[in-house]
Amino acid sequence: MTQTIGAPPGVRVPYADLLDFTTGVFTAYGLPADRAHAAAGALCYGDLTGMRTHGLANLTRLYLPLFADGRVNPRAEPRCLADTGAAARYDADRAPGLWAAGQAVDRAVARAADHGIGLVTLTGATHIGCAGAHALRAVDHDMIGIVVTNCGRQRIARPPGGLATMLGTNPLSIAAPAAEHPPFLLDMSTTAAPTGRIRTAVREGTPIPPGLLADDDGTPVTDPGAFDRGEAHLQWLGGAPETGGYKGYGLGLLVEVLAALVPGAGLGPAPEALAGSGTPTGRDDDIGVTAIAIAPGRLRPDADVRHDASVLFGSLLACPPRSPDRPVRYPGWYEARNAAYNTGHGVPLTEPLHRELCELAERLGLRPPGTRDVTETVR
Amino acid sequence: MTQTIGAPPGVRVPYADLLDFTTGVFTAYGLPADRAHAAAGALCYGDLTGMRTHGLANLTRLYLPLFADGRVNPRAEPRCLADTGAAARYDADRAPGLWAAGQAVDRAVARAADHGIGLVTLTGATHIGCAGAHALRAVDHDMIGIVVTNCGRQRIARPPGGLATMLGTNPLSIAAPAAEHPPFLLDMSTTAAPTGRIRTAVREGTPIPPGLLADDDGTPVTDPGAFDRGEAHLQWLGGAPETGGYKGYGLGLLVEVLAALVPGAGLGPAPEALAGSGTPTGRDDDIGVTAIAIAPGRLRPDADVRHDASVLFGSLLACPPRSPDRPVRYPGWYEARNAAYNTGHGVPLTEPLHRELCELAERLGLRPPGTRDVTETVR
Repeated sequence: MTQTIGAPPGVRVPYADLLDFTTGVFTAYGLPADRAHAAAGALCYGDLTGMRTHGLANLTRLYLPLFADGRVNPRAEPRCLADTGAAARYDADRAPGLWAAGQAVDRAVARAADHGIGLVTLTGATHIGCAGAHALRAVDHDMIGIVVTNCGRQRIARPPGGLATMLGTNPLSIAAPAAEHPPFLLDMSTTAAPTGRIRTAVREGTPIPPGLLADDDGTPVTDPGAFDRGEAHLQWLGGAPETGGYKGYGLGLLVEVLAALVPGAGLGPAPEALAGSGTPTGRDDDIGVTAIAIAPGRLRPDADVRHDASVLFGSLLACPPRSPDRPVRYPGWYEARNAAYNTGHGVPLTEPLHRELCELAERLGLRPPGTRDVTETVR
Repeated sequence: MTQTIGAPPGVRVPYADLLDFTTGVFTAYGLPADRAHAAAGALCYGDLTGMRTHGLANLTRLYLPLFADGRVNPRAEPRCLADTGAAARYDADRAPGLWAAGQAVDRAVARAADHGIGLVTLTGATHIGCAGAHALRAVDHDMIGIVVTNCGRQRIARPPGGLATMLGTNPLSIAAPAAEHPPFLLDMSTTAAPTGRIRTAVREGTPIPPGLLADDDGTPVTDPGAFDRGEAHLQWLGGAPETGGYKGYGLGLLVEVLAALVPGAGLGPAPEALAGSGTPTGRDDDIGVTAIAIAPGRLRPDADVRHDASVLFGSLLACPPRSPDRPVRYPGWYEARNAAYNTGHGVPLTEPLHRELCELAERLGLRPPGTRDVTETVR
């Protein structure tokens, strides 16, 4: 849950400019215009909502190298392999996950409109960005959206008590309409933190709290650099076994089962993982993605669902807070607030990231994303 | 994840005896024979698998008072309120949840057989026992089973930063076939611990590890008695906000949305919760339950699913362990091992619990559950 509008020192770029620029980049890399626009929306969503670990910082580091290496197919044509009406399985054909995951949600929504529930599962997918950006698409249709994705054969986290890395950070997202309140949106790695959070801390030179990384003996590590040096590994949500670390591990497996075992995508736990040194190995190719949409309005009157959602989320917002300056919220509230603010005031980017994007614009012959100075700090 | 066969000092009762006795109790309380048998199976499952917090200790404490107070309807006839083919909504008519949740899974399985995915959601339900006992029913059909249930209007946990209790422990369970290995079975409260674990520690006079309970200031509390004295409250999975407590809270809301908002059951977060004193309030009536079944075999060949499940779970079991005497396992493995052992050697019950059941047998004119002395201790 992103809790502050406060952006790092830097610039603010009008959202429309940022979206145009990013669409232009994906178009230059071979995506058809509509898909480039959808992928750009999913990527800009990170910076727009304050989830900077999953935003444009990943453009040159993660996504463009996938195109350059041929690991993403910009002209992919996902192919339906099985269709039961309510459920379908597709080969994503290495389509950009930033687009294909949203399309999977849209297809699940169409099936849920007919059947009350819909499931679309992808094999052969690529990195999808913020799972929540895609799950939210269901909310536009008054539906609940669920998106899970494994990390293909990239092995980042160890099973509890194990010496080999065998699973990814395996994110899980659910979005639900909340009537007049901002949508409920949970978007979480099943490890205590995603790798993006660790690496952002490295880039920004800040320590991380105990509980996210630990060394071989389980001792907490607060130096984020220890992760990529192989001296510390990611903990599961819940931390130590006695405080629920097995639940985080179990949730990671829930994602592996739904996202990869169901469609037949690349699995983290596999024989080739057993020889690993205990540090991250493998590549996030052949990722699995599963999108589920549920249409409560097919099961009871829309007005009743809306009323109950208003009660549920409105009551949480009205909960007396422990500290008057920290009101009670729910996941998704801050993201919606940030998105509204940043749409009006420009999307905050750090200076180095903005410079990087301007250099990319020059290289591709695109107009650089416009800027305006940060003139205010808001809590 | 229950890690030891080791049972507390006590007796072992042959499983068939225990099941007959418990079936007899539910029959005496008015359940039709087949439903009594199903409910007994779900309740005995806790002791059979080592999840003692959700087993027969709850019979006289939790379930029988519900019958006595008329909060459970032994002759309930759940009524279908909406049916889209793949999905359906039922009014559970206060049926015993120990039976009705299993029936919901069976109905979701039948729908998934036709549609690839099936959802059955219940309003007006009652306490279901171990969610995992029900989710496992899908595995018998080579399907994935998901069961979520809220706690009706019982409010046990506070939203982060809030002073009023607004949500239950909201359990989440998923079961999946694992080929020749024991089924994967995650069965977890979304709080760091369920209340049953806290109260078992009180009964057994043992402290609890830091991270499960905290006082108003967030300081960890290890005296389990502090919970029912109102001096400590349940933490969400993930603990403090900086180590992921918002994720546990978000998972609790995921359950509230799927289990209660979808069917229109009693909601934890509601206006009457706002005046709460911060300690548990409300009753677990009008519970919501949602069961989802997914049939991977409708989307790709069964043999392929089976092969991949064997690879996934077999690789985890083969992961080199940090300590040679603590092999790597996954959720469900220990439960299956315990069930197999206890089926052969008798189900372990503490002396006081066994005495309680014998007294109940006498009161109801039933044969007391047979016993044999514990003659071995096994790790």
